[in-house]
Amino acid sequence: MKLYELAPTPSARRVNIFLAELGIEIDRVSVDVRGGENLTEEFRAKSVNGRIPCLALDSGEHLCESIAICRYFDELHTPEHSLFGNTPIEKAQIEMWQRICELQGLFVGFQAFRNITKIYEDRENCVEAWGHESRQRVIDFLPTLETQLSQHHYIAGDTFSIADITAYVMLSFIKHLDITPSAEQVHLMRWQQQIAQRPSVQKVNAATIS
Amino acid sequence: MKLYELAPTPSARRVNIFLAELGIEIDRVSVDVRGGENLTEEFRAKSVNGRIPCLALDSGEHLCESIAICRYFDELHTPEHSLFGNTPIEKAQIEMWQRICELQGLFVGFQAFRNITKIYEDRENCVEAWGHESRQRVIDFLPTLETQLSQHHYIAGDTFSIADITAYVMLSFIKHLDITPSAEQVHLMRWQQQIAQRPSVQKVNAATIS
Repeated sequence: MKLYELAPTPSARRVNIFLAELGIEIDRVSVDVRGGENLTEEFRAKSVNGRIPCLALDSGEHLCESIAICRYFDELHTPEHSLFGNTPIEKAQIEMWQRICELQGLFVGFQAFRNITKIYEDRENCVEAWGHESRQRVIDFLPTLETQLSQHHYIAGDTFSIADITAYVMLSFIKHLDITPSAEQVHLMRWQQQIAQRPSVQKVNAATIS
Repeated sequence: MKLYELAPTPSARRVNIFLAELGIEIDRVSVDVRGGENLTEEFRAKSVNGRIPCLALDSGEHLCESIAICRYFDELHTPEHSLFGNTPIEKAQIEMWQRICELQGLFVGFQAFRNITKIYEDRENCVEAWGHESRQRVIDFLPTLETQLSQHHYIAGDTFSIADITAYVMLSFIKHLDITPSAEQVHLMRWQQQIAQRPSVQKVNAATIS
């Protein structure tokens, strides 16, 4: 197996923190996304969505979509404490929070960043007003996390899960939009510091923030 | 248990087709989304994302996010053929395609519809240019499905899955954006007709298209 990725991107960081949590080592191939390597026919034949990360299996098949890649490893290794949850209610709550952090946080941040900076205007139409609207929506989302973390140790409840990885990567990414938790969001800041101290996160940060 | 929903919406249709596939009957409560019932404090105390569908459990807990609700029932009932897949590779491929159909199809269609029609401008800022850009991106996504369906019977491979439900609901929804498969997309049309004939889909269509 090998993983096509661009290590500093939020999507690669999600997969890499997940792999580090499970103690999985894997060969990696860096893809020049800014240079458009992911837009080539060769890469698109591997990755259905044309994006990284993309996992090449020994069977010749490929998997894209970060969460699908994480779930594949979770199913292969069946860790005692799955980051996707163990019981039906735990699995559902983690799925719910993972999606909320993605759909109301991380992906909204992506739309803000891409449309404001126009970093990929060589390959997509940008709408700056939507970028600014999206940025505001990310800010408006943070109180949801603050409320949840005032009642629970982790995002989806009392154990660390894939939802924490998504939320942590989101919170790191939105610094590029000049968004940080406000002084009153004390639970969010407590949680962010706590996640930053996990060995998995320290390993990935050391490899990508240099 | 009871399900808070608005039956004709795409999100409710996803859950309802899934429940019909598993033969699950459940009490339902209709929520007046257009009238803003989902924005009340009472509803928001149930649904973290403030949206329908939202499942009230007998324990007093609530689950929102359509896919989290579907996964909960899948885990509770453990059907012989899970619509989320049975083996690690099947689960990963279904997760991948479910997400692709959602993130490049259904949700892009939502953004197109909301920003073009401004149907919810009483509660959100709309950016019409983003609506039109999103509409074009949905059109540009359909060839990905056509290619996949030229090689496979269903969206995620050779068995019916949650990815087919997402893609089918998406294809029904984008009619409101005047988007239908083009005459050359013969595999997509073959698949759409085939899904429309499933008893689960006929049951849900009969209940919501009247």
